[in-house]
Amino acid sequence: MFVNRRDVQIQWGDCDPANIVYYPRYFAMFDDSTSTLFEVAGFSKQDLVKKYGLVGIPMVDTRAKFYIPSTYGDWITIETKIESIKRSSFEVKHSVFKGEALAIEGFETRVLVGRDPVNPDKLKSAPFPAEMVAKFTGSEARS
Amino acid sequence: MFVNRRDVQIQWGDCDPANIVYYPRYFAMFDDSTSTLFEVAGFSKQDLVKKYGLVGIPMVDTRAKFYIPSTYGDWITIETKIESIKRSSFEVKHSVFKGEALAIEGFETRVLVGRDPVNPDKLKSAPFPAEMVAKFTGSEARS
Amino acid sequence: MFVNRRDVQIQWGDCDPANIVYYPRYFAMFDDSTSTLFEVAGFSKQDLVKKYGLVGIPMVDTRAKFYIPSTYGDWITIETKIESIKRSSFEVKHSVFKGEALAIEGFETRVLVGRDPVNPDKLKSAPFPAEMVAKFTGSEARS
Amino acid sequence: MFVNRRDVQIQWGDCDPANIVYYPRYFAMFDDSTSTLFEVAGFSKQDLVKKYGLVGIPMVDTRAKFYIPSTYGDWITIETKIESIKRSSFEVKHSVFKGEALAIEGFETRVLVGRDPVNPDKLKSAPFPAEMVAKFTGSEARS
Repeated sequence: MFVNRRDVQIQWGDCDPANIVYYPRYFAMFDDSTSTLFEVAGFSKQDLVKKYGLVGIPMVDTRAKFYIPSTYGDWITIETKIESIKRSSFEVKHSVFKGEALAIEGFETRVLVGRDPVNPDKLKSAPFPAEMVAKFTGSEARS
Repeated sequence: MFVNRRDVQIQWGDCDPANIVYYPRYFAMFDDSTSTLFEVAGFSKQDLVKKYGLVGIPMVDTRAKFYIPSTYGDWITIETKIESIKRSSFEVKHSVFKGEALAIEGFETRVLVGRDPVNPDKLKSAPFPAEMVAKFTGSEARS
Repeated sequence: MFVNRRDVQIQWGDCDPANIVYYPRYFAMFDDSTSTLFEVAGFSKQDLVKKYGLVGIPMVDTRAKFYIPSTYGDWITIETKIESIKRSSFEVKHSVFKGEALAIEGFETRVLVGRDPVNPDKLKSAPFPAEMVAKFTGSEARS
Repeated sequence: MFVNRRDVQIQWGDCDPANIVYYPRYFAMFDDSTSTLFEVAGFSKQDLVKKYGLVGIPMVDTRAKFYIPSTYGDWITIETKIESIKRSSFEVKHSVFKGEALAIEGFETRVLVGRDPVNPDKLKSAPFPAEMVAKFTGSEARS
């Protein structure tokens, strides 16, 4: 399945008075990583909205396990991988490395949604476009 | 076990271009709710640091399941409950209600930490103060 | 002109490793305060969008002067006042009090915008609805 | 005076329901840019704290003027320049470019602070280390 890695430097404003990353910030980094994974695969968030008519890929279920703390100035590597794809949902795993050590594991189940045609204020799950499935599952797809 | 409920209004800046709460914001709300639970029980974050010598109560493992989205202007009720306490770790559950409906469930495992006496740059787990255990587990403790 | 006051407790996650509020957080609090001012006046953000057809009230120019720092657990009072209204722009002043002391002053120039009818991807300034001007400038309007 | 430029991609979570960057996020980007400027000059935030004994470089006065909005996926360039240095305070200017166009201007007055020796809970301004002044004002200093 499709994988992407990116390096992120922890910033002063990511950290709390205990001198470590305020953990909700990691979820924002993970969200950026999932967007980046899609963009690297050729499906930018703008494309998801404008070309594919989606409203977004909201979170259904997410979990993170924290093993090693980080602080401002530290560099971490976030490895993001699509684990599985169903009709309109998919699973992502983030592995955060600090040097060689596994610092955090993040898990996501997301769903593709569009506007509900009956009530545009509501969201409705949307099927994965075939080319997206092909790209994410194809043996040639590993970045 | 100890329970607290608080009402939170979703703000414009909590929401993303899909018009729903950007989910990392919920983790910040949950963190505030856990702090509030401690404060209501008589243990403010300032007390944790100054009176009990802790550095904080960092997250070890957290998960959230999202059932119903919310948008700016909406009011949600966050019910926060300490589920269990061990020597230096504890589990918290957040149940978010939108009206009568269960909108989100959040789960946390946290640990009490202080500075490692050998290397003050490092954190080290610290045992729960007895009065905190008594307050959180006592039958009289329900708020 | 219209004024509103609200009390805000500084949270752990609002603070940085210097143990004081990470200043960008104040701008989010000010944005919430301006939304609250509109809501108290009878114009919720949902109304701005759905009833008045606006996209938002984006910032044109903002400034803040910081006199007294705050940390987690502290309560501050944010007094928010509309200073002046023009055709489609307006000025807001936030005065943050810590007890009796003036801790921060914030200044905003915002503009009412809708979608540009020619290019809906672009924003276009929109005139103030008359009832909003009346409410904000009327002698009876002080909350 | 010392200058640094860096490219930043706007993320989904930086944007609000109007589909543009939620402006408090720009202040966080500017704070990161000022930290990066110091780091590029050889003075990482960790050095400021551990080598120079500072607590931080908190904001005294900041302002931003917004000319052109951006949305998720957009790349902006933030050019950050130290404008002037006094005994313990300094001024920074951020110029944000979107392509060739000036999109935002940001202004900061910050101060170097350490712990007050009389009351370590309080902050106290600290003089600029000579080598920092030399680096930031030296003709050889332009990055």
